[in-house]
Amino acid sequence: MKIISDIEEMIELARQWRAAGESVGLVPTMGYLHAGHLSLIRQARADTGHVVVSIFVNPTQFGPNEDFLRYPRDLDEDKALCEQAGVDVVFTPRAAEMYPENYDIYVEAADLSRRLCGRSRPGHFRGVCTVVLKLWHIVQPHHAYFGQKDAQQFLILERMARDLNIAGLVLHQMPIIREADGLALSSRNVYLSAEERRQAPVLRRALLAAERLYAAGERQAAALLDAMRQELAQADLAMVDYLEIVDTVYLKPVAEIKGQALVALAVYFGRTRLIDNILLGEK
Amino acid sequence: MKIISDIEEMIELARQWRAAGESVGLVPTMGYLHAGHLSLIRQARADTGHVVVSIFVNPTQFGPNEDFLRYPRDLDEDKALCEQAGVDVVFTPRAAEMYPENYDIYVEAADLSRRLCGRSRPGHFRGVCTVVLKLWHIVQPHHAYFGQKDAQQFLILERMARDLNIAGLVLHQMPIIREADGLALSSRNVYLSAEERRQAPVLRRALLAAERLYAAGERQAAALLDAMRQELAQADLAMVDYLEIVDTVYLKPVAEIKGQALVALAVYFGRTRLIDNILLGEK
Repeated sequence: MKIISDIEEMIELARQWRAAGESVGLVPTMGYLHAGHLSLIRQARADTGHVVVSIFVNPTQFGPNEDFLRYPRDLDEDKALCEQAGVDVVFTPRAAEMYPENYDIYVEAADLSRRLCGRSRPGHFRGVCTVVLKLWHIVQPHHAYFGQKDAQQFLILERMARDLNIAGLVLHQMPIIREADGLALSSRNVYLSAEERRQAPVLRRALLAAERLYAAGERQAAALLDAMRQELAQADLAMVDYLEIVDTVYLKPVAEIKGQALVALAVYFGRTRLIDNILLGEK
Repeated sequence: MKIISDIEEMIELARQWRAAGESVGLVPTMGYLHAGHLSLIRQARADTGHVVVSIFVNPTQFGPNEDFLRYPRDLDEDKALCEQAGVDVVFTPRAAEMYPENYDIYVEAADLSRRLCGRSRPGHFRGVCTVVLKLWHIVQPHHAYFGQKDAQQFLILERMARDLNIAGLVLHQMPIIREADGLALSSRNVYLSAEERRQAPVLRRALLAAERLYAAGERQAAALLDAMRQELAQADLAMVDYLEIVDTVYLKPVAEIKGQALVALAVYFGRTRLIDNILLGEK
């Protein structure tokens, strides 16, 4: 397994793979890898000839009052996990090379970035789009892998690939990986106190409450949201940031579920913001 | 010469050229081709194996009160000129395919877009960056050609190529082509009335006044700008939009010229906005 920090070196290696007609899979991460990331890596390993895992805590996707500085990092452990998973290259670019002096170009989703998490995190998806497009240009992957936990991110990146005419790239959204008690894996779970951690599976229980009602035939969003709010009220440390049922094209709230809907929520436990979601119905 | 309107067809042809190791040159235009465009095409023809001229009046780079609808178009004449110039492909994408339903992704220069023309044309460079990046993704050129008349555009696109890690693409800025009386060629010159056209070379005369002073040793921007204003005052139909001497990294006004400076101006004749510029000194 190679560790590459130099952008030009990564570009050159990817160019050689492309020239040889070999397929490339990219798993973009901010490191502190967990079983969710490893499921993406496993899929990339199965699909492609060369697997690149990028590890870069991207400063432009954090707001000024967010957790960029304290975001958990453990590069040695990440490398060991990648090695075990059969990764070919761990790409760890330096921030000063990703965003050099006079850096000025940003990519944004005009409308989708204003929905769901975008309202609480202005600028977040602009940072995500920018860094992911840079990584696509550098690594030139044929396949790229993302977790469904960041469902809005995936929808925006799919839109980016379509709207900017990225050719020959397939995006894969992989299922959310959870702890035994239902909590979705996240690098940010380490921020939780013991009591917060105990209460955190309430996100999952709220989603399951909505799913049960849906399975029983309920299609009114208000009824599902009520059931979710009742569930969330059981956890006294949970402060809801948002709780929405939206369509999967515009991410706009729907009153009645027709076709596919995304049920998404963000909940604060203290300073820690957790998200989770579930898809209902078919496209 | 091929005429291609379908984006997928253009992507596939460009992919074949790349796979065969053949070089590709792109001249992005809004059509209504003049000798300025033809100088770019000539250079592309000399440099590369395959020359693509894109013709697309890009709606996203026009403001709501600008001239998108009346922008001059003559596709038959453009095709004939391209044929004569030895162009391989005229790429004429349809707006509905470039900006499909739910189009949402834009590329912008955060700071550079606020300078010079960006102040009078909010959103203009966002539209330019977006469409040019799309064209780069579709045509995958090794070389791309632009005229110095749009000096700010070139600086922004160079920054875009660097900041978004576009690999293997060389940008070429070609000299401004002028009428015998000094007026820089522009598709918009057709908007000018006979009297406006008679007065329009005042832009060039103002730039030459600055150049003469600079050649004589003057380095104070205020002195050069004064000389330019005196020249512009000779043309009673000329309404100055801006007149600036800026550095060529940040496009910020300089008081004293050290190294390279861009002298740039935009002048209205009635509703018609003309731009011109000159570079002084060395980088």
